[in-house]
Amino acid sequence: MTHSLLQRQDHEGVATLMLSRPDAYNSLSMELMQALHAELDAIADDLTIRCVVIKGSGKGFCAGHDLKQMLGEGEEDYYRCTFQTCAGLMQRIVSLAVPVIAQVHGVATAAGCQLVATADLAVAADNARFATPGVNIGLFCSTPMVALSRAVQPKHAMELLLTGELINAQRAYEIGLVNRLVPESDLDQAVAELAGKIASKSRRTLQIGKQAFQRQRELPLSDAYAACSEVMVENMLTADAQEGIDAFINKRKPEWTHR
Amino acid sequence: MTHSLLQRQDHEGVATLMLSRPDAYNSLSMELMQALHAELDAIADDLTIRCVVIKGSGKGFCAGHDLKQMLGEGEEDYYRCTFQTCAGLMQRIVSLAVPVIAQVHGVATAAGCQLVATADLAVAADNARFATPGVNIGLFCSTPMVALSRAVQPKHAMELLLTGELINAQRAYEIGLVNRLVPESDLDQAVAELAGKIASKSRRTLQIGKQAFQRQRELPLSDAYAACSEVMVENMLTADAQEGIDAFINKRKPEWTHR
Amino acid sequence: MTHSLLQRQDHEGVATLMLSRPDAYNSLSMELMQALHAELDAIADDLTIRCVVIKGSGKGFCAGHDLKQMLGEGEEDYYRCTFQTCAGLMQRIVSLAVPVIAQVHGVATAAGCQLVATADLAVAADNARFATPGVNIGLFCSTPMVALSRAVQPKHAMELLLTGELINAQRAYEIGLVNRLVPESDLDQAVAELAGKIASKSRRTLQIGKQAFQRQRELPLSDAYAACSEVMVENMLTADAQEGIDAFINKRKPEWTHR
Repeated sequence: MTHSLLQRQDHEGVATLMLSRPDAYNSLSMELMQALHAELDAIADDLTIRCVVIKGSGKGFCAGHDLKQMLGEGEEDYYRCTFQTCAGLMQRIVSLAVPVIAQVHGVATAAGCQLVATADLAVAADNARFATPGVNIGLFCSTPMVALSRAVQPKHAMELLLTGELINAQRAYEIGLVNRLVPESDLDQAVAELAGKIASKSRRTLQIGKQAFQRQRELPLSDAYAACSEVMVENMLTADAQEGIDAFINKRKPEWTHR
Repeated sequence: MTHSLLQRQDHEGVATLMLSRPDAYNSLSMELMQALHAELDAIADDLTIRCVVIKGSGKGFCAGHDLKQMLGEGEEDYYRCTFQTCAGLMQRIVSLAVPVIAQVHGVATAAGCQLVATADLAVAADNARFATPGVNIGLFCSTPMVALSRAVQPKHAMELLLTGELINAQRAYEIGLVNRLVPESDLDQAVAELAGKIASKSRRTLQIGKQAFQRQRELPLSDAYAACSEVMVENMLTADAQEGIDAFINKRKPEWTHR
Repeated sequence: MTHSLLQRQDHEGVATLMLSRPDAYNSLSMELMQALHAELDAIADDLTIRCVVIKGSGKGFCAGHDLKQMLGEGEEDYYRCTFQTCAGLMQRIVSLAVPVIAQVHGVATAAGCQLVATADLAVAADNARFATPGVNIGLFCSTPMVALSRAVQPKHAMELLLTGELINAQRAYEIGLVNRLVPESDLDQAVAELAGKIASKSRRTLQIGKQAFQRQRELPLSDAYAACSEVMVENMLTADAQEGIDAFINKRKPEWTHR
């Protein structure tokens, strides 16, 4: 399932998806969004994958929607389809069984910044820059805001949204939009190490944890504890937990069956 | 609508409201809260305004409620009226169509700190200091807490609330209570630049975005996406989005009609 | 009510609870969780206490659950009981009338990290390290996640949960997991000062504030303001608020009756 506009490479449990519209700053055309969504669906069923990396080709990560395509269609229904497709894609990342890392170099703007905010983790090169610039063209970044305002503190989100200005990688790190900041020449290596570490875990455990994270997040405290206590019991009874705990107590390396 | 205890000055789409009770550290007497609320109501209907700045006169920003006035009245009903008036004022800022910037020098304490936490953005002079000191006088800052606990992380809010101590501008910046930190001599200029940048946007776009921000914030993720996808469609059909996108594609400056 | 595995020491309104299983890194055996819960129940009714400190004995703070005990029992019902007991203990800290400070040296992992995230405030020695390493043994830290994801930003929580790696005290400070960072030799003194400051307040005021904090946190903004405005009125009518305000206006030290 490799599309010309989306390259997938698998390596030791890590699937790397490269947005491949370099001449258009990897902007999210309808076709690219559909290809990415389809690839994530395929990964959801691919038990060999334990971590996903999303990166961009060429000069930057992703510059958001493809405005020319949208204007070319110029219909309310097409706009609606675009934003709903995008919202569906972002929620596919959230609901995916395995963790998703955004690997960011160059610009990540509008829906590109939303991709970063949506990913479970993000690693940025020191040349990365982030913005939600819709306000500059009269089109507020209201859907990127959904992800952004859940990833960073309100005043930091508002500054990006209201000014439309770029922030640099250092500032993105300070406000918690990215987890790690590395020189551009080290970016591939840093992401490979982080993704490799995650891919060394049990897929079953990662799935239980990621899904519980998203679910408990929207619950009141007592409901969250009730739900997650039950998740812990269920997790404890899996083959991989029994194996992992036994390996830990006997000071050996666990052998996951991912069940 | 300029009151002696609240000065309003308009300049190129920015309304600056100066709290003018300098001898009482701009504490929020009932009359000042009512004047500020009324002025915000007027601004809501004033289509020439695209950004609001709230600042203090004299030695500091705002020292909270006027305790002497409250004690002088000394009645449960008066206390209730005070806190409800204050809560209504803060929610007026949240619901206002245009962004509000707190410009902070000197102390911002109790309901003054709440004003900062409530504003969409805040710029602080390096001499600014922040506290929710109610606990020191047996009156926990429970209403300031509503805004503070939504602006900063829980342990940072709790430290302010439980100790009642002042933090300096640097710490307020680190915990995300303010967006920017500048030397006191540069404060007017820094706020003018930030407010000017926001006032250069389409009022309609700012309104759509700010209102969507507040609305989606309290929704579960999927509801937030459903609501904001529809907001994007509606926004896309506005005159200013059509103008802005066309200007962007044709590399010219947009001319907003604010519709 | 001092248990051999939990030492309590009271000093000027501060109850210090020391987890005392140093040979097991103070891991939370069923007995230790029950002892800690019982002690917190006792403190809830002890009007002489205005602040609680939880610390560890020996080399570290707390290394989470007692895996050997859990495996030894090896029954689904026992697992359920363990996680529910732990969830109940954490919520007992949240609902306690007086503030709780975690005093952290050495490792705070899994449910030990959850204790830190759950406490109202945390002070760390520079040798403190934090992790939610369950993912490494196939047992995702899903209940620690409930507290962690409410204490820090999502990407910071996810990094801890997905990698299972230790972060140092400096990083824990940066992400807001702890309030203060001090050299290990100053830890006792730093916590004593912070706890002493809180214990100098009115117990009634602390209780009103802490309970309102937790309650309003899960409400929409307008409901939170309605609830907290009423809390302020109730607080204003207490003996300690009347005393505190009078003392403030007359520039004297207040004498709390804690009512």
